[in-house]
Amino acid sequence: MAGDKTYVDISRAKCEQRERLIRDEWKISPKLKLGHNVLEVPKICGILTEREIAITGDNDAVDIIEKIRSQAFTAEEVTLAFCKRAAIAQQLTNCLTEICFEDAIERARQLDQDRVANPSAPWKPLHGLPISLKDSFNVPGLDSTIGMTYFANKPAEEYSALPRLLLDLGAVLYCKTNVPQTMMTADSDNNVWGRTLNPSNLKLTAGGSSGGEGSLVAMRGSVLGIGTDIAGSIRIPAICNGIYSARPSSGIVPFAGQQSPEVPGMPGIEVVAGPMATSSRACSYFMKTIMTAQAWRYDSSCLHLRWTGEQSKRKPRIGVVLDDGLYTPFPPVRRAIREAAQKLRSAGIDIVELRLPHVAEALGITFGMFALDGCKFVQNLINEGNEPQVESVKRVNLASIPASSLADYMRLNDRRHQLQDIYHKFWIENQLDAIMLPPAPQTATRFDEWGPVSYTALWNFLDYPAIIIPTGRVRESDVADGEDSALYGEADLNNYKLYDSPETYQDAPLTVQIVGMRQEDEALAGVVEFVDNILNRS
Amino acid sequence: MAGDKTYVDISRAKCEQRERLIRDEWKISPKLKLGHNVLEVPKICGILTEREIAITGDNDAVDIIEKIRSQAFTAEEVTLAFCKRAAIAQQLTNCLTEICFEDAIERARQLDQDRVANPSAPWKPLHGLPISLKDSFNVPGLDSTIGMTYFANKPAEEYSALPRLLLDLGAVLYCKTNVPQTMMTADSDNNVWGRTLNPSNLKLTAGGSSGGEGSLVAMRGSVLGIGTDIAGSIRIPAICNGIYSARPSSGIVPFAGQQSPEVPGMPGIEVVAGPMATSSRACSYFMKTIMTAQAWRYDSSCLHLRWTGEQSKRKPRIGVVLDDGLYTPFPPVRRAIREAAQKLRSAGIDIVELRLPHVAEALGITFGMFALDGCKFVQNLINEGNEPQVESVKRVNLASIPASSLADYMRLNDRRHQLQDIYHKFWIENQLDAIMLPPAPQTATRFDEWGPVSYTALWNFLDYPAIIIPTGRVRESDVADGEDSALYGEADLNNYKLYDSPETYQDAPLTVQIVGMRQEDEALAGVVEFVDNILNRS
Repeated sequence: MAGDKTYVDISRAKCEQRERLIRDEWKISPKLKLGHNVLEVPKICGILTEREIAITGDNDAVDIIEKIRSQAFTAEEVTLAFCKRAAIAQQLTNCLTEICFEDAIERARQLDQDRVANPSAPWKPLHGLPISLKDSFNVPGLDSTIGMTYFANKPAEEYSALPRLLLDLGAVLYCKTNVPQTMMTADSDNNVWGRTLNPSNLKLTAGGSSGGEGSLVAMRGSVLGIGTDIAGSIRIPAICNGIYSARPSSGIVPFAGQQSPEVPGMPGIEVVAGPMATSSRACSYFMKTIMTAQAWRYDSSCLHLRWTGEQSKRKPRIGVVLDDGLYTPFPPVRRAIREAAQKLRSAGIDIVELRLPHVAEALGITFGMFALDGCKFVQNLINEGNEPQVESVKRVNLASIPASSLADYMRLNDRRHQLQDIYHKFWIENQLDAIMLPPAPQTATRFDEWGPVSYTALWNFLDYPAIIIPTGRVRESDVADGEDSALYGEADLNNYKLYDSPETYQDAPLTVQIVGMRQEDEALAGVVEFVDNILNRS
Repeated sequence: MAGDKTYVDISRAKCEQRERLIRDEWKISPKLKLGHNVLEVPKICGILTEREIAITGDNDAVDIIEKIRSQAFTAEEVTLAFCKRAAIAQQLTNCLTEICFEDAIERARQLDQDRVANPSAPWKPLHGLPISLKDSFNVPGLDSTIGMTYFANKPAEEYSALPRLLLDLGAVLYCKTNVPQTMMTADSDNNVWGRTLNPSNLKLTAGGSSGGEGSLVAMRGSVLGIGTDIAGSIRIPAICNGIYSARPSSGIVPFAGQQSPEVPGMPGIEVVAGPMATSSRACSYFMKTIMTAQAWRYDSSCLHLRWTGEQSKRKPRIGVVLDDGLYTPFPPVRRAIREAAQKLRSAGIDIVELRLPHVAEALGITFGMFALDGCKFVQNLINEGNEPQVESVKRVNLASIPASSLADYMRLNDRRHQLQDIYHKFWIENQLDAIMLPPAPQTATRFDEWGPVSYTALWNFLDYPAIIIPTGRVRESDVADGEDSALYGEADLNNYKLYDSPETYQDAPLTVQIVGMRQEDEALAGVVEFVDNILNRS
């Protein structure tokens, strides 16, 4: 309980505390003029040195690790550079929640000294790499509010499984990132920390629920962050911010010990943790590292799947899905998937155009499973925190959601297995190595307008791994076309109409989604490397 | 519905049909005198040739496969020999349900011809090996009654996933084996096929629910059969019949497409399929074969775990548990576990004596999860079949079991995860490679007296793999001691008192259970090979 303090008081105190954890010399001059797109501000705001601009701007996570190993960089200067750039990102987009920059810099210095003391020790796979974490991960001494007043000023006492593992692998933890109130919407806005903005266009949503991560990585205040995903929460911020991200198959990346808005013991769709990064190989490297590290030692629910190192060298066969039969993609999203398919075709990839079966039914089961307790648990958290619902949560209309019985759940579960079976056969019969499809019908939208999640949530329902690859941005030529283009009824039309002009969506990133078979995350990483090379480096 | 026919009529017709599928020349002379132990009858009944006695009696599944490859045996003669020995076993113990001997012999002949036609084709891993199946597996044209009148005369139209895979791997399917009515007890007795007997002592139970398999393998009417296990149903028949068997971690061996007494979509304890065999290496070979065969292609719920071939060569560290703190093992069972521990110690194995935490609570959750629907689904099946409950089902008192709510289930599930976590830490902190413990407090009991399943069901609750190794038999020196030996209260005492004298339990097999960490089935196979060598071949 919050005692005498209102949620506004609590928020003010938390935000002031966060402000104090940014060094004065890292503060952006209030005189700096900002446009709608602030991605280049770190280079021009005068806070970063040229070397720091290069460290943070020109290297992905794999480069950073390699250059620390080759002594081109020290862990300390890398960490300092990312703390500074994260501080800049925070001031521009409000992407952070808890900050531990000074501890991070001290740890990095210690890692450097450990190397000097033990120059022949084997390198830990993440030695010296700063990794940012979604707010839901527990780090001792820091709150995990997940955007809810109820959880404010209740610092964690133990690490969640994944941060504990990352530290043991040599990583440096330096900040946590913002989420929506409840983590159940795609707009990272809440009454504790406020709203995270999209650095590509400050008038558009940063997405969610891992929206702070998306914004921070787009600003290159982080080159590797960790999000979580139950319906698209790793991928939607990647779509909105134009970064890479991977929703792994469930049970691979340790998830245990996080703050959760979900009633304990709830069965259904598996929520997973996964990487958000500036390159596809950073996502792969993360997955390889986790799958080589006996991650199950840190989380008893982890599967004992291992990275084999035996990736296929042949050209993949890829199913292309232009839309999901429920929601018509915005004109620039249609362009993005068509251009991507054309590039793959031109590169000689074996492409087969597919329609996805049973999407509406799968989505219905998914939403039924999300709300088994009628969302009573999360409503209690809001009520106990004495705070109002933010706009995107209001739109969910939590109070209207009915609870399910055990018999209801069994019916949903049985039918889920049947549909998983149908998709399994669909995959095998089409001899697929991957499916490429839009990751959403929309780009980043205006605030609180994020709509359908069918393109992302389907893969949570099936538990298939899915990776976002950025491919470009909205252009002036992506004109809004007539409402006749919306093919699938009223809900589709309402979403489609949101795309009113390319000006509204200026600089909004475009992305594609590449999906693999369940638990074939390693094989998918191989396909994505291949596809990313064709889409972005050829 | 059974129409005008009573369950007795239906049973008579099914049993006569089964009788007709055994060739006349394979029928045992009614003049043959039988003792309590019929294990040697196949050698003396005059039905098998010397060569057939040798094929079935002196070879495990791996030998059979190797000798077919080296052309020492043909698939056809092997199959014929096992059909004959299974027919003998059936006449002595009533272990079979559906029989397809003639199709099996024809398939084996075809496999032999295929080799002649394609002598350089790669060998399929199970080429020519006869494999028996628990009745719950569907094979087109055969019933899967699972001991229930309701399912009689409704032949399957499709293969379950596992038999389909086994055929693709070259196996020969020749019979299915008996189970209890409902598959929910440990006495393989039902109103369709009657009771399966224990060939070591016809007055003792063959166990269940895979009791037909246990009896058949003990008779060497099969050297590799497939059972299923949700509380011990693979292991209890192995305990009763003195054979090897493995309950794998869930999700490894394809389970899909079986006849089930469980309401569809029910969550909770995972039921698994696994091998029952005459050697530990046959169990390992089966697991290796399945884990190398992309078994997930046959069952969309299978995990993508692979056999690595990288088994540890060091001596394992083994936790020894003398009892589970709930039920006192019978005197011969105490002797068996102590002698086994002593042999391991003498062989220089690192042994640590352990007490298991939270067994009673784990067992309570397990039973709660078994009965989420108040067992209404299975009671309906019994009622629809117009048949009475058999004695062991009556003892369960199905009608008294309350149904759970979804909130109840979530509490059980949450606490299950907590206990799984506690055991996970327990395992890691004790640096265990395996735990050795009694597989039950009792040996094979008299009919319908099988009692506690805490020693087996705990590992279903935790989803740890568990393997049964036979070590000996009850001896005259295993005298019944006083009731003071029962340490854990009334339920314990009631079970303990069942051991009234070694004469009652004459020739009852003794076994130990070796448990591995979840999904470390390959590592466990290595430990078991090691332990089995010490216990049985040194």
